Amino acid sequence: MSSEKKISQASVIRLELYMEYLEQLGREGRKYVTSKEIGESLGIAAVSVRQDLFGLSSAGKPKVGYEIEKLLSLIYEVFDMNKIKKACIVGYGNLGRALAKSQIWERAGYELAAIFDNDPSVVGTGSDGVKVRSVSELFGVINSEEIRMAVIATPAGEAQETARLLVSAGIKGIWNFAPLKLNVPDEIAVENQSLVWGLITLSFAMKDVETN
Amino acid sequence: MSSEKKISQASVIRLELYMEYLEQLGREGRKYVTSKEIGESLGIAAVSVRQDLFGLSSAGKPKVGYEIEKLLSLIYEVFDMNKIKKACIVGYGNLGRALAKSQIWERAGYELAAIFDNDPSVVGTGSDGVKVRSVSELFGVINSEEIRMAVIATPAGEAQETARLLVSAGIKGIWNFAPLKLNVPDEIAVENQSLVWGLITLSFAMKDVETN
Repeated sequence: MSSEKKISQASVIRLELYMEYLEQLGREGRKYVTSKEIGESLGIAAVSVRQDLFGLSSAGKPKVGYEIEKLLSLIYEVFDMNKIKKACIVGYGNLGRALAKSQIWERAGYELAAIFDNDPSVVGTGSDGVKVRSVSELFGVINSEEIRMAVIATPAGEAQETARLLVSAGIKGIWNFAPLKLNVPDEIAVENQSLVWGLITLSFAMKDVETN
Repeated sequence: MSSEKKISQASVIRLELYMEYLEQLGREGRKYVTSKEIGESLGIAAVSVRQDLFGLSSAGKPKVGYEIEKLLSLIYEVFDMNKIKKACIVGYGNLGRALAKSQIWERAGYELAAIFDNDPSVVGTGSDGVKVRSVSELFGVINSEEIRMAVIATPAGEAQETARLLVSAGIKGIWNFAPLKLNVPDEIAVENQSLVWGLITLSFAMKDVETN
């Protein structure tokens, strides 16, 4: 067991909100920020902000506040964004292609190292220098390339079997886009991507707009 | 201006977390839940939970707690999920196709009513009964179908012009997948979808797993 306290989903989301906000302040040329300002801008109680930042072992200075660049580097460390890790995608349908071509990898500290699909008409094609390989090569490539993170972008019916394969090949984290809960060993990290939340957040904002 | 207090991004995220958690409890056959249990399960201070639920004008009963079904219906109301609204997608590339075929619409209270693309080779094709139309039809269709929400799934270089067109056609909310900040009038609700967050959350969970 880690001596680190388990950080809850809500705290992770708060840290991501801080990160985005601090990066924005940084782009505006700001050097310092107070917990009060962070809290008010994001709608989070100042006491929670202070607690979260204290958890990053960062100390604010009276009146001046926190050094933005230092806070950001502590958050990047929490999210393991300082070193580049290798990722692979399984499933080169519409979603897999959209993800392969997106700019998310570099932003989050990843290199897209491999793509797999079981459709022979797709194998051999590719995106930006990453060739699509047959799923039969998955085990060997994940091992030789030392890939530890995989995206499941397969049809829902193939997701569970894909997860089993990935885990047996040594994958430690799965970003799952299939709309089902994967059955994997406890030590495997799984992030189920829910696009529904973005849509619901927008509905809320539109409702607010309409009643203004 | 609305008399309603503006709900912050952090509160919206908390409400979404409550919704997901309450739905899960409902599926397990539970009828009641306390703010303490919600808070502990999600890592949110009980005082914040009580405040959020109070904001929904829901009252818990001493010892028993909140009625799950009632809380859920109040949250669905906040997110405007009780009536079905019409949405359209602009851009029928990989991302647009993946979204068109996904199950998010029904889940979030939407009907996908139209798809637009400016590539003649794509116009006329479609997904599950929704035909892809030329962008030149956008203005007319959005008006006649009374569509108020649009997804921008175009290449980044076309996103701003698409947003301008959509707003002039009467769209009130934009779910933007292009990696740039759109310039639209203040009264238009925009939700910028960031997939990076899912990836970063996974990195955090994997780091936690590795150090255990």
